[in-house]
Amino acid sequence: MEKALAEFLDEATPPLMRVAEELDPLGNAARAFVLQGGKRLRPLFCYWGYRATGAGDGEEIVRAAAALELLHACALIHDDVIDGSDTRRGAPAVHRKFAALHRTSGWRGDPERFGEAAAILLGDLALIWADAALERSGFDAATIQLAATVWDAMRVEVMCGQYLDVVEQARGGGSAERALRVARYKSAKYTIERPLHLGAALGNGTDELMAAFTGFGLPLGEAFQLRDDLLGVYGDPDVTGKPAGDDLREGKRTVLVAYAVESANPAQAEQLQARFGDPQLDDDGVTVLREVIAATGAVRRVEQLIVDHADESLRALESVPMDEEARAALVGLAATATARAL
Amino acid sequence: MEKALAEFLDEATPPLMRVAEELDPLGNAARAFVLQGGKRLRPLFCYWGYRATGAGDGEEIVRAAAALELLHACALIHDDVIDGSDTRRGAPAVHRKFAALHRTSGWRGDPERFGEAAAILLGDLALIWADAALERSGFDAATIQLAATVWDAMRVEVMCGQYLDVVEQARGGGSAERALRVARYKSAKYTIERPLHLGAALGNGTDELMAAFTGFGLPLGEAFQLRDDLLGVYGDPDVTGKPAGDDLREGKRTVLVAYAVESANPAQAEQLQARFGDPQLDDDGVTVLREVIAATGAVRRVEQLIVDHADESLRALESVPMDEEARAALVGLAATATARAL
Repeated sequence: MEKALAEFLDEATPPLMRVAEELDPLGNAARAFVLQGGKRLRPLFCYWGYRATGAGDGEEIVRAAAALELLHACALIHDDVIDGSDTRRGAPAVHRKFAALHRTSGWRGDPERFGEAAAILLGDLALIWADAALERSGFDAATIQLAATVWDAMRVEVMCGQYLDVVEQARGGGSAERALRVARYKSAKYTIERPLHLGAALGNGTDELMAAFTGFGLPLGEAFQLRDDLLGVYGDPDVTGKPAGDDLREGKRTVLVAYAVESANPAQAEQLQARFGDPQLDDDGVTVLREVIAATGAVRRVEQLIVDHADESLRALESVPMDEEARAALVGLAATATARAL
Repeated sequence: MEKALAEFLDEATPPLMRVAEELDPLGNAARAFVLQGGKRLRPLFCYWGYRATGAGDGEEIVRAAAALELLHACALIHDDVIDGSDTRRGAPAVHRKFAALHRTSGWRGDPERFGEAAAILLGDLALIWADAALERSGFDAATIQLAATVWDAMRVEVMCGQYLDVVEQARGGGSAERALRVARYKSAKYTIERPLHLGAALGNGTDELMAAFTGFGLPLGEAFQLRDDLLGVYGDPDVTGKPAGDDLREGKRTVLVAYAVESANPAQAEQLQARFGDPQLDDDGVTVLREVIAATGAVRRVEQLIVDHADESLRALESVPMDEEARAALVGLAATATARAL
């Protein structure tokens, strides 16, 4: 996977350089962003979705799966602009890097605006490259066209999920039900179901396999998002790559928070009201909020939901015929995606 | 063309609505933006590039050409966020529309940030839809794959051109040569050469035809951009859809401005220095700047360059064999693209 991504970017970035040396920072930022990390969950689900059809290992599927990582780069780069995030994967967010370039170059105008402009355009490039990576993966044209339905649906869904998320933050005070709907579109379909479908489509999988992947992917994806929400509040910054408490300062409306609000006693509700979404929240404030949320029972409830969803997803894998190595790999990926120390 | 766009959007937008009614504004904004206007230059060049190969009229090529209008929607929506523009095609820019939605809904947070988030995501959707429109245009998979090389190059070039433009604005004080290079990537290749190539590739055109389209498209595209720069300063707001003088207030570094700076006498240079790029410039200031720029001889020089480029482009069309109806249509489009009252 790393090799496929590096090879694609080696091929994709040099034409930029021929246009003008001013474009170097775009190519370099793309390489740094895509190659510097990430769990590669989406490509892995795509790969094993393909292998589940009985198709053998090959360079085509690795290259096609790499397209998902480029699409994800677009989603994250644009998401960081939208959220005004400072860091990503433990490094400055792309728009912050370009703001710094503006400053060190002594250019005119607002460095932050420049950084956002560059990040919007680099995200667009990543979206275009994602498409080119799938197109040039080596599958024949008819297979690519078959997979295009899934690919299009997936890309539209992730952008709609992001928009719903932004609306949800703006409306505030959402129910657990609404937070779960965002999780479904932003994460369950995008992170798990659609990558599996894309792989299965490239392997010409049966309708039965597609349906099983929906039954497996949606609950697992929701469990994954719920785990991510917990990590956003309780996770180790060294592992998550995000400063501790950022989700709390941002006031991110997750299922966890919705449960906490639902079950809070008056004293807890007061604490939540006073501190949640406060951009100035200090480390002590973060600790207090963590304790309050846990004390409402919301953490236990989310942990239980993760277990239930994970169980449901594994049951959906059981009955359908598929390659046994792939089935075992998917069971393993399910454990990874919902594990506490991800 | 209008029918193809409306049909595509009818097909593309309803799945959004099924996800959640909160997505309605995205679908509505997409329809309004794409269907409310634009000169459809890129689809027209694509269409006649196809017909030039000898291929007959058909629904496939109209649908494929519509993809260019969706790509253009992405470029414009993101460009307006980047430039902080208030209006587009005589209506509020997409990010302003969504900021207004935020305000009327009484949501939390900064309406402008919300508007920008929505516009980034709607631009992403338009980019994805562009791809889906080409993919589903009705051409067979092998033809689509053949055209993908042009399609990928075109999309990468336009984003790189936008980035170069942003860098050029940030650096300030650019030469005419650097402004022309931006015009080449942002406009000449994107608006004319690549649409012609895309059409020719879909019609399985010869290498000779492709080369002729480069010889025709690049100078014509530069002429088109030069005309656009003139219209940005001297155009009728009712025709351009942009408030008069916006390019002057923004301090847009065009070839016109570079020529004016090059040829200004000390008094003119002082006026340019004092007023150009002043966001507060009033109507009288705009009038003064217009007169100063014209008095430097820059307008005459740009008009001459337009004529020279247009002549060069027409000569490139002459010798190569192509469908005669297409040749005549391309000559007509060249006149339209560089006409004073466009």
